[in-house]
Amino acid sequence: MNAAPTLTLADIRAAHTRIADKIHRTPILTSATLDALCGGQLFFKCENFQKIGAFKARGAANAVFSLTDAEAARGVATHSSGNHAAALARAARLRGIPAHIVMPSNAPKAKVESVRRNGGIIIFCEPTLAAREAACAEVIAETGARLVHPYNDYAVMAGQGTATLELLEQAPNLDLIIAPVGGGGLLSGTAVAAKGAKPGIRVIAAEPAAADDAARSFAAGHIIPLDKTTTIADGLPTSLGERNFPLIQQHVDGIVTVSEESIVAAMRRIWEVLKIIIEPSCAVPYAAIMEKKIDVTGQRVGLILTGGNVDLDALPWMAK
Amino acid sequence: MNAAPTLTLADIRAAHTRIADKIHRTPILTSATLDALCGGQLFFKCENFQKIGAFKARGAANAVFSLTDAEAARGVATHSSGNHAAALARAARLRGIPAHIVMPSNAPKAKVESVRRNGGIIIFCEPTLAAREAACAEVIAETGARLVHPYNDYAVMAGQGTATLELLEQAPNLDLIIAPVGGGGLLSGTAVAAKGAKPGIRVIAAEPAAADDAARSFAAGHIIPLDKTTTIADGLPTSLGERNFPLIQQHVDGIVTVSEESIVAAMRRIWEVLKIIIEPSCAVPYAAIMEKKIDVTGQRVGLILTGGNVDLDALPWMAK
Repeated sequence: MNAAPTLTLADIRAAHTRIADKIHRTPILTSATLDALCGGQLFFKCENFQKIGAFKARGAANAVFSLTDAEAARGVATHSSGNHAAALARAARLRGIPAHIVMPSNAPKAKVESVRRNGGIIIFCEPTLAAREAACAEVIAETGARLVHPYNDYAVMAGQGTATLELLEQAPNLDLIIAPVGGGGLLSGTAVAAKGAKPGIRVIAAEPAAADDAARSFAAGHIIPLDKTTTIADGLPTSLGERNFPLIQQHVDGIVTVSEESIVAAMRRIWEVLKIIIEPSCAVPYAAIMEKKIDVTGQRVGLILTGGNVDLDALPWMAK
Repeated sequence: MNAAPTLTLADIRAAHTRIADKIHRTPILTSATLDALCGGQLFFKCENFQKIGAFKARGAANAVFSLTDAEAARGVATHSSGNHAAALARAARLRGIPAHIVMPSNAPKAKVESVRRNGGIIIFCEPTLAAREAACAEVIAETGARLVHPYNDYAVMAGQGTATLELLEQAPNLDLIIAPVGGGGLLSGTAVAAKGAKPGIRVIAAEPAAADDAARSFAAGHIIPLDKTTTIADGLPTSLGERNFPLIQQHVDGIVTVSEESIVAAMRRIWEVLKIIIEPSCAVPYAAIMEKKIDVTGQRVGLILTGGNVDLDALPWMAK
């Protein structure tokens, strides 16, 4: 009998080799101003500059290019509110196979356009998890496409972990990495990569207090599903995946929560000081520093800026 | 009798040596998406990531660190609506001397804050050139401070030209460089650096049609002052300096103009595709490409993104 499938550093290294020519090696930005404000040294891994504007390009590329030719020929499918959708469409386009993308009818305009530009076949549905899963199951039944789940998938996690491999090459002496957590795809990949490549490093997750299922699950020792909620960090209100959670329990040192106000303030400060565009979801780690939920005094801290796909007509500080 | 003072490549190289440890060597960004849209290869020199968020850090640093100790001791002064003000305040702070900054009462909030953060002594005045010059003359009379003009100053021009020295090291095979033009400090430094370092390269300037004094002056062969006007590119409605204009006549290949609508569209596209924050003024060169005022088909084109200091509460696509 085989051991249960899981995720290892070797998987993440293999993923990096597989996708290296399909993604950007994104830069690290630093800021004397932000360092002075927090007392630590911050290294921002700019996945907002990644292909399709988000780290999700990594996991989707690894999943699509891990398929056999026979599997790939039937295409891929997913349901996603945004970046994973565009990422899967793009990876499928690179491989020359169809991508069926189920999106909620209220998905941000910029993200819908991004799927379209990448040749994805869009199926709109009601904005509930049940409707999304039903629509996705239907298209898979019709086409034989392979489901590539946004986070509850080892190939996806391995791909997401490649950002951390690069971060640790670019900033080798980190004491701590902070990542946001939604379904846990990035976090599990990040934690396995970080602890594998650099034992002794700490990995802390940050999530919106308004969607604190990961913090509560981590404390309880079992997955507590997220009730219906809204947060400005629209990539994060997602329950943890059952494949992600054990890896998080094993490799993550803590999960902290932040207020909505802090998320907006952190996003705005990063826009103003770093002069880069980031999504609310990826302001969550820096918000945890601003709220002093994580003490970074004297620490060298990597923060993963997960994406930059924002609807410029609906910024959180605009009057409604 | 000495030859009339002017600006040479050697001055710009000396400036670069003088200021190298006081500025960022800013990165170049490229985009397959933007290249496909225009048929050329674009290399964006990201001076929005420069210290104080704009290339003006270069010229101000060169001017301040070119002073003798005796000159420096009496401080520096300028009038500026924004980035030069913050840049001069910062350079003075680095040298430990006072900077007296005359700002119009309607200067963008972010730019006023930037001067304050850098320790500048702010004198507000009415938003007219006459009021600014009078207030500046007064503070110079009182303090003996040295005027560092935003553009009509050879040390400032030399500093601004250092961005192009770096650009040509980072992207050596450029056919063309496009820079915005206001008073002409950046443009004269850019043109002298480019033509000196790489004979045969073309240098084209872009300006708002709403403030087209540089294009009209270039065509007429003499400086035509700018009438009172407004443009979204708030760094550019400035008449050409008398020291800048001869250098522009000698080294610049053409000046094109763009509409206000194009400037906003170009700014927004750069935000959305490159995921970086740039000011309206530095969207003008890319607007000229979008408007097909400059044919870049098959060309390798450097564009200087001059700054990223934007009031996030007053973006041009926000409802008033």
